[in-house]
Amino acid sequence: MTQLQPVLALDVGGTKLAAGVVARDGTVRSFCRIETAVGEGPTAVVKRLLDLGEQALAEAGLPVGSTPVAAVGVGCGGPLDPSTGVILGPPGLPGWDSVPLGQLVAERFELPTYVENDATAAALGEYRWGGWGVESLVYLTVSTGFGGGIVASGKLFHGAARQGGELGHVVIDWQGRQCGCGARGCAEAYVSGTSIARRATEAVAGSDSTLAGLTITAKDVAAHARAGDPIARAVWDETTAMLGRMVAVLVNVCEPELVVLGGGVTRAGAQLLDPVRNAALRQAMPPAARACDVVLSRHGDAVGVLGAAAIAYERLGDA
Amino acid sequence: MTQLQPVLALDVGGTKLAAGVVARDGTVRSFCRIETAVGEGPTAVVKRLLDLGEQALAEAGLPVGSTPVAAVGVGCGGPLDPSTGVILGPPGLPGWDSVPLGQLVAERFELPTYVENDATAAALGEYRWGGWGVESLVYLTVSTGFGGGIVASGKLFHGAARQGGELGHVVIDWQGRQCGCGARGCAEAYVSGTSIARRATEAVAGSDSTLAGLTITAKDVAAHARAGDPIARAVWDETTAMLGRMVAVLVNVCEPELVVLGGGVTRAGAQLLDPVRNAALRQAMPPAARACDVVLSRHGDAVGVLGAAAIAYERLGDA
Repeated sequence: MTQLQPVLALDVGGTKLAAGVVARDGTVRSFCRIETAVGEGPTAVVKRLLDLGEQALAEAGLPVGSTPVAAVGVGCGGPLDPSTGVILGPPGLPGWDSVPLGQLVAERFELPTYVENDATAAALGEYRWGGWGVESLVYLTVSTGFGGGIVASGKLFHGAARQGGELGHVVIDWQGRQCGCGARGCAEAYVSGTSIARRATEAVAGSDSTLAGLTITAKDVAAHARAGDPIARAVWDETTAMLGRMVAVLVNVCEPELVVLGGGVTRAGAQLLDPVRNAALRQAMPPAARACDVVLSRHGDAVGVLGAAAIAYERLGDA
Repeated sequence: MTQLQPVLALDVGGTKLAAGVVARDGTVRSFCRIETAVGEGPTAVVKRLLDLGEQALAEAGLPVGSTPVAAVGVGCGGPLDPSTGVILGPPGLPGWDSVPLGQLVAERFELPTYVENDATAAALGEYRWGGWGVESLVYLTVSTGFGGGIVASGKLFHGAARQGGELGHVVIDWQGRQCGCGARGCAEAYVSGTSIARRATEAVAGSDSTLAGLTITAKDVAAHARAGDPIARAVWDETTAMLGRMVAVLVNVCEPELVVLGGGVTRAGAQLLDPVRNAALRQAMPPAARACDVVLSRHGDAVGVLGAAAIAYERLGDA
């Protein structure tokens, strides 16, 4: 009966924590979300994550102890070790060095617990429940950070290093911006919400941009670009151009049927998708481009929870 | 008994044609090689290729008609359609537009014939007979052109577009040199033998380089760089730096256990391998880099024939 039970899914982002109970058909039976408040450090954040998980179980009518829940799936920013569930100092979670997240979750819920890179997990969630009808896809999350995952021939790609592809650190411009990883010109150095905000903050200094004086977020940059502010528009256009180039590289290497974009920054909708899609499919080699499309995830804020749930089902052998 | 029979393998390169009979254990029972003489056009080149295949059968003691050969595998520069065996205008084979190579080979030898991109095929040959003991690898050929193939979880990657990954057209520098494909800064625009020769020819114009006055080949550039000519060295160093960056991208995306370099330019040995290996493993993300090594193929000039043979065995279901 294991494969018929729902799973608890936990999603640890640099900005938000989320928890939900997800049924085998992808129905989200409960969904709770709070601020990560990453400055509080891993001990406090993990405690609130576990409490949020209990709340999600209760809201789904499955309080701890009574739970017919099969397992817990956890998505978290990498690097991490999926075999042990230890988090290995992700750039978006300062202070999370050697945090045994899988063990802490397993102890609280007394359930098999499976930890995976959040963007890798989300790729499997899109494959399983995205409604796309494809056997291969690349998922890219444009969020606090930037990363992704790959599904090929209906299987989640894990890789020899079990990182599921370090897609955020594909170099787009080897002479370009310093990335948090130490290299220059990684996709994450241009495409993450953090980088969008930072580049706009640098660009408005001493200017008459409508962004001047704000504590700028990626959402602000999108809104002011739409309203015609030239500096906001330049930062936004650089972001979509770099993401378009990065998608073209992945279309050439991975030849997927679909590239799915998700994460908070994709709330900008067509303002993000249209230029990225146009650039990527124009720049990729014609046969690979013709076999592929670029779309936005339909999972919205639940994309991380659905990814973590998909990992739990995969590891339970219910692929 | 089909799976015990050897196969005939044909390799169509921009510089050389090769044919060989390959046993199931990778033993090359015959091997013949001639100049492609690509300027003669596809009809003449295909006729010589077919004659070369007959010569390989005869040299293996298996003349046409008597042949207990299971199939013919053909490797050729892409783009091509592996399902029909039609060659679709590869940059390295001018005039080869819509050449029905698979059909022409099948008619001559009256055998099942399987056509694949040469570099994709070579990846499978390395997996099957390279003696590496890995389940995942990326093979890159540095030859007249530049391309590659991917084996993941013991299977050759084909891709939604059936191009097996357009690895030669991963963009390394989006503001860089024009590539034959129309884009800027593709790996092939720096790493192919053609590009090495062309960049050196540009660089020596009006200089006192020891290369001046030669009709420069990639081999000349390697030799003069070794001898200390500053211009040859600069071209060589740019080549290995760009290839190192490209390998780092592939290590991040594909997380293979091994990257194998083959093709004529790799005859330079450590002069090519050492800087590429150092750059790639330094630039890739540490977990992916630690899981991977970069090596030279041990197949030498037979790498294309072994690849084509591996494709024949794969399509016969003998994976």
